[in-house]
Amino acid sequence: MKMFRKLLTLDEAQRVIHQHFKPKPLGVEEITLLETCNRVLAQDITATLDIPPFNRSTVDGYAVRAEDTFGADENKPTKLKLCGKVNVGEPTKTAVAHGTAVEIVTGAPIPEGADAVVMIEHTERKENDLHVYSAVAKDENIMKAGADIKKDEKTLKKGQLLGSREIGVLAALGMAKADVYAIPRVAALSTGAEVTEPGRRLPPGKIYDINAYSLSAAVRESGGKPAYLGVFPDDMAELQKVLKQALTVADMVITSGGVSVGPKDVMPQTLDSLGKPGVIVCGIAIKPGKPTTVALINEKLVFSLPGHPTSALLVFHMLVRPIIERMTGKKAEKNLKVKAFMGMRTFPAKGRRTFIMVRLKRGKSNRLVAEPVPTGLSGAIMTLAKADGFVEIPENQQFVDTDEEVAVQLFKNLEGEA
Amino acid sequence: MKMFRKLLTLDEAQRVIHQHFKPKPLGVEEITLLETCNRVLAQDITATLDIPPFNRSTVDGYAVRAEDTFGADENKPTKLKLCGKVNVGEPTKTAVAHGTAVEIVTGAPIPEGADAVVMIEHTERKENDLHVYSAVAKDENIMKAGADIKKDEKTLKKGQLLGSREIGVLAALGMAKADVYAIPRVAALSTGAEVTEPGRRLPPGKIYDINAYSLSAAVRESGGKPAYLGVFPDDMAELQKVLKQALTVADMVITSGGVSVGPKDVMPQTLDSLGKPGVIVCGIAIKPGKPTTVALINEKLVFSLPGHPTSALLVFHMLVRPIIERMTGKKAEKNLKVKAFMGMRTFPAKGRRTFIMVRLKRGKSNRLVAEPVPTGLSGAIMTLAKADGFVEIPENQQFVDTDEEVAVQLFKNLEGEA
Repeated sequence: MKMFRKLLTLDEAQRVIHQHFKPKPLGVEEITLLETCNRVLAQDITATLDIPPFNRSTVDGYAVRAEDTFGADENKPTKLKLCGKVNVGEPTKTAVAHGTAVEIVTGAPIPEGADAVVMIEHTERKENDLHVYSAVAKDENIMKAGADIKKDEKTLKKGQLLGSREIGVLAALGMAKADVYAIPRVAALSTGAEVTEPGRRLPPGKIYDINAYSLSAAVRESGGKPAYLGVFPDDMAELQKVLKQALTVADMVITSGGVSVGPKDVMPQTLDSLGKPGVIVCGIAIKPGKPTTVALINEKLVFSLPGHPTSALLVFHMLVRPIIERMTGKKAEKNLKVKAFMGMRTFPAKGRRTFIMVRLKRGKSNRLVAEPVPTGLSGAIMTLAKADGFVEIPENQQFVDTDEEVAVQLFKNLEGEA
Repeated sequence: MKMFRKLLTLDEAQRVIHQHFKPKPLGVEEITLLETCNRVLAQDITATLDIPPFNRSTVDGYAVRAEDTFGADENKPTKLKLCGKVNVGEPTKTAVAHGTAVEIVTGAPIPEGADAVVMIEHTERKENDLHVYSAVAKDENIMKAGADIKKDEKTLKKGQLLGSREIGVLAALGMAKADVYAIPRVAALSTGAEVTEPGRRLPPGKIYDINAYSLSAAVRESGGKPAYLGVFPDDMAELQKVLKQALTVADMVITSGGVSVGPKDVMPQTLDSLGKPGVIVCGIAIKPGKPTTVALINEKLVFSLPGHPTSALLVFHMLVRPIIERMTGKKAEKNLKVKAFMGMRTFPAKGRRTFIMVRLKRGKSNRLVAEPVPTGLSGAIMTLAKADGFVEIPENQQFVDTDEEVAVQLFKNLEGEA
């Protein structure tokens, strides 16, 4: 087995991973517009038509030549000859000549010859004559063709996440289908003789598996599609078998457990046996998360995270999530951060970048206070469930003081005001 | 038809809707743990066991009686008799009596009689004897049963959105299934003779439908399940037929178009013909969104939104989304707001609460500036796609000044720092 003499820093580990693996989308698929919500656009969208495609009336009234109405007011109406009507959704048949007007409704196309619309409120009809009591300027009450989107205008970009507003743009352009990036598939499994799947009876000395479930959900939250594989013993032959299978069906594999220094921690050896280059990161100087191991096998990444649930999810958040997000084709998103004041003096682990779980609350003057939640137990899933986010303390910092301003990276978006 | 003499304010409209309809979850379904991501928990979760279920070693080493090691140091090791080993996942067979030690690995259950674990680094093995070079205190290197979660502890609450961390808690408790709220089904349709479905050839005088697509996506973003029904003409008989069908298959219906004052705006009449009480809100003093009509039919809400895409999505955001969210069982979430400085003096519409679409950018001293995007055209879907959020100007305010501090309600979460 390769030797890894010293722990890498988090930055070094990220650099090593990046040297071996450039995350990028895995393919493109064409799907119907209704399926595109929350997918990532895989094409630049250039408008193939003007939106609106024609000059439209923005009011109910009469299409006229503006100059015919000049000087009209309440006492001295202009008289025009009525000749026809345009409805919405119909092509215009009648043209507007000097001295004439055509009835029009909101959204209907402006007939040829007309260059303004008089609102119905400013007119009076006398049989076939129209009295106009208010002058209109050229283009008044008209939405011009292309006013919303111009033909050949670049509207949406490759890499944009599609939501209600972007889907509205695609619909406006008449696109019933769109090219989106394929969703990366990420397999998740847990290892350990003590781990039992939820739903079964718990034998003495055993605990229920958390990580294959919480990591599957984290994959989904990152935009990937999880493949839950279950729980496996720390046995090299069995692990080789399931990892080979996982590498066939998935684009990335995440395991948890089996990476500490104990005699049963066979994961690094197993990973090295499966292909080149094998293990590329074996231990990172962070707390929690030190035993984290990363391998590259057949050009696919395998992350072996610590068995402690909090450590596993935190390392996922720091190291794995950004890579899955890039594989979805999304533009890199930074974690959402808020400023807060530390609730108590807090010390990092010596020589390791340390992540302190915190809960946010309102303190004096309504300012946000980051209250550390007890982290003595990195296995504590409740600690994590209660935390709003974490504060990062660099390797070389002695401590963070009470009331010191810190940036809290949020696990999810805070409700209400940020 | 009922008469609605004056426009309601937004607050009045919300009050009227609330008087007629109390949004609440529609039912409960039991699903497997792997399906629970992004669903809303429908049960309070009380722990049925301690987590961990037994006292566990947090290190590799030897389980001992702490008092046996008192006084031990590098020069004067304590000698203990080795009697057995506990592995992870195995019940403990050997008890630790005075003067004895049992080998133990990380995560294994502490054997009877022992009350501390000595780390392997502080020991030396001489055949069946163990030399301990460092004293340990009672409970040292032990994670006690229930340290993470205590039996009978309330862990998660009805109404919590399930993500990776909450699913981790459910897994820890051995739950392979959970009760979640049913997803509300919301039907969406567009009306108008000028509207054509995307993917077809665009006849002269017509435009592509935007709203049934963007509103379907907005329903999904709010936690509902959209049912896209398509485009229908402004014809009372046809609308009655499709609305009846929509009210059968969906829990709420959203239409767009057909609610202005034009002669073809048959929607309010149609709604009144379908059941009691029929139309409850007919016009709201907001801009954009004035023609918004709301009906209650067979205890289901029908929202008839304006045909302009921006107006439709904005009214959805203000009026419809909070109701769908409560129907999912989620705790009410406020829109995410950020503080910013207005980029230019901006005037509201007279007597109407006005929503100004803005784009956020960084100004001098890196402060956030809210730059209004042209809103002359409330039909402009690109305006909306380019905006980051909106600023609300109350009915009685004259204007918002340049550099005035405003709260921007975000359409989605800003990337990076909030």
